[in-house]
Amino acid sequence: MQILHRAEIEAAVNAPDAIAAVEEAFRAYSAGQVEVPPVGHLAFKEPPGDVHIKYGHRRGDPSFVVKIASGFYDNPQRGLSSSAGLMLVFSAETGFPQALLMDEGWLTDLRTAAAGAVAARYLAPKNISAIGIIGAGIQARMQLDLLRHVTPCREAVVWARNPQRAAAFAVDGFRIRLVSSTAELCRHCNLIVTTTPATEPLVRAPDVQPGTHITAMGADGPGKQELDPELFASAHVCAVDARKQCLAYGDSSHAVRAELVRADKFVELGEIIANRSLGRTSDDQITIADLTGVAAQDVAIATLAWARLRDRRGVKF
Amino acid sequence: MQILHRAEIEAAVNAPDAIAAVEEAFRAYSAGQVEVPPVGHLAFKEPPGDVHIKYGHRRGDPSFVVKIASGFYDNPQRGLSSSAGLMLVFSAETGFPQALLMDEGWLTDLRTAAAGAVAARYLAPKNISAIGIIGAGIQARMQLDLLRHVTPCREAVVWARNPQRAAAFAVDGFRIRLVSSTAELCRHCNLIVTTTPATEPLVRAPDVQPGTHITAMGADGPGKQELDPELFASAHVCAVDARKQCLAYGDSSHAVRAELVRADKFVELGEIIANRSLGRTSDDQITIADLTGVAAQDVAIATLAWARLRDRRGVKF
Repeated sequence: MQILHRAEIEAAVNAPDAIAAVEEAFRAYSAGQVEVPPVGHLAFKEPPGDVHIKYGHRRGDPSFVVKIASGFYDNPQRGLSSSAGLMLVFSAETGFPQALLMDEGWLTDLRTAAAGAVAARYLAPKNISAIGIIGAGIQARMQLDLLRHVTPCREAVVWARNPQRAAAFAVDGFRIRLVSSTAELCRHCNLIVTTTPATEPLVRAPDVQPGTHITAMGADGPGKQELDPELFASAHVCAVDARKQCLAYGDSSHAVRAELVRADKFVELGEIIANRSLGRTSDDQITIADLTGVAAQDVAIATLAWARLRDRRGVKF
Repeated sequence: MQILHRAEIEAAVNAPDAIAAVEEAFRAYSAGQVEVPPVGHLAFKEPPGDVHIKYGHRRGDPSFVVKIASGFYDNPQRGLSSSAGLMLVFSAETGFPQALLMDEGWLTDLRTAAAGAVAARYLAPKNISAIGIIGAGIQARMQLDLLRHVTPCREAVVWARNPQRAAAFAVDGFRIRLVSSTAELCRHCNLIVTTTPATEPLVRAPDVQPGTHITAMGADGPGKQELDPELFASAHVCAVDARKQCLAYGDSSHAVRAELVRADKFVELGEIIANRSLGRTSDDQITIADLTGVAAQDVAIATLAWARLRDRRGVKF
């Protein structure tokens, strides 16, 4: 088994390949070609923490993947990152371990940002005036960074609750403008990405311009919410990464529970990838992509990383 | 994170400590002190294989454990072991990975054999005439090897379907006698361990002498069976490692389904450890321990191994 550390992994995997791998993962997932059992979960009280075990196998792939990711919320008080994570790649021919990817959560960040790029590739309008980024954390930066591969637009408008973090926000090659409200952000942007742990809507329906695409990736568990549920009623396309998850606890779930939209309005990103006519059909439509994160992405990104690293290390199989 | 290989792990963990750790694991499990979520499972068809992910945390322990174990049944055709496995130890304070135990399934074999020793410690009669071992594989050897720590008896009687494997059976310090039927084995032995993948009963109720204890550890999944279901009707104590599992697919399940015994007759080994009066109360009783394997054992054995290895490597925490 090869042991690989973050620096080596980061050097081996490039963004366009990651986006392509995640796009293919969504297609395969929605086509029922990825075995993705229920996520395993361990909860801790003292100190508070959550551990998630995501694993799966795309039929026909030579490897399967197990990811173990944790969030321990008192870690920052000790000067440590709250999140940790690693992925294991195993042979689907023998069950033997092939690689331990000690990526410290980087591959998860990458596959999450890649999903935003895939959503924009399929749903954003042709001409993007400016990219609106809500939030100023790691995902805010990575989402913007990866959007360079799906749009030539290099104008970004940023709003974040924490003004210091917003002021420090920078992504190579992008002109960044800070605004003091999400309403102002919505006025300037027709491609918006929300990347926060908010529990109440940050984007109001009346503020969103016709033709806007919004990717919401923050609501990845019960209680979280970034979008006005009314947006789902006015949107022409309500895309989700995984119908089951999004209707259970994604931003979509709030709109369905409020009976603003029927569950059958939701279409999986993988279904749009397979049949583009299910997505945006004109430049004045509002579209939404609600991303909760699926193990199929983890399988795809780890498989990609291992393929690249194996080549670099000259490992034969 | 420390990476530890099989030889180093084998050298660091001794049998009496393993037995004590597994005994405590059963006690804690039955007392509801171990968080053990449902086992994760991935199934493969070409080539055929199964992957199980077992994980858990004993409340208050500084670590939690994830085990990934596989069986790929065509491996022997390629000169490889069908089973593979590794365990990961993480800090329950921070979620950070502490150790990767590349034990190749050895710790699972050890914790399984240790469970047999615990069962014998609590349920075997005082004076053991001879130990009967049914099967001649790795578990057959390890079960007998570990029983040396709970009984002074060094007489073993072995029966196995495969006469060549039976003839090659040897465990340091034990006199081994081969027999040609389980009936003959039962005549000589009042402590019997069944260690086979049988799907039909190997031990018949009329053959078993009064005072015998039988540990059955082979039936770890649907369709497997080693004991005559009638034995559960005549036994004074029907012990199980985990009530839920044993009644679902252990040897016990066949007896319950045949309505030979009521589900409320079964008592968990951990309950007997906490309250010895639930176990054997006289030397002429027949007792059974049905072992299916619980993640609490994996957690205990990995935690033990990591504690010993950490000391040896001088890792500070």
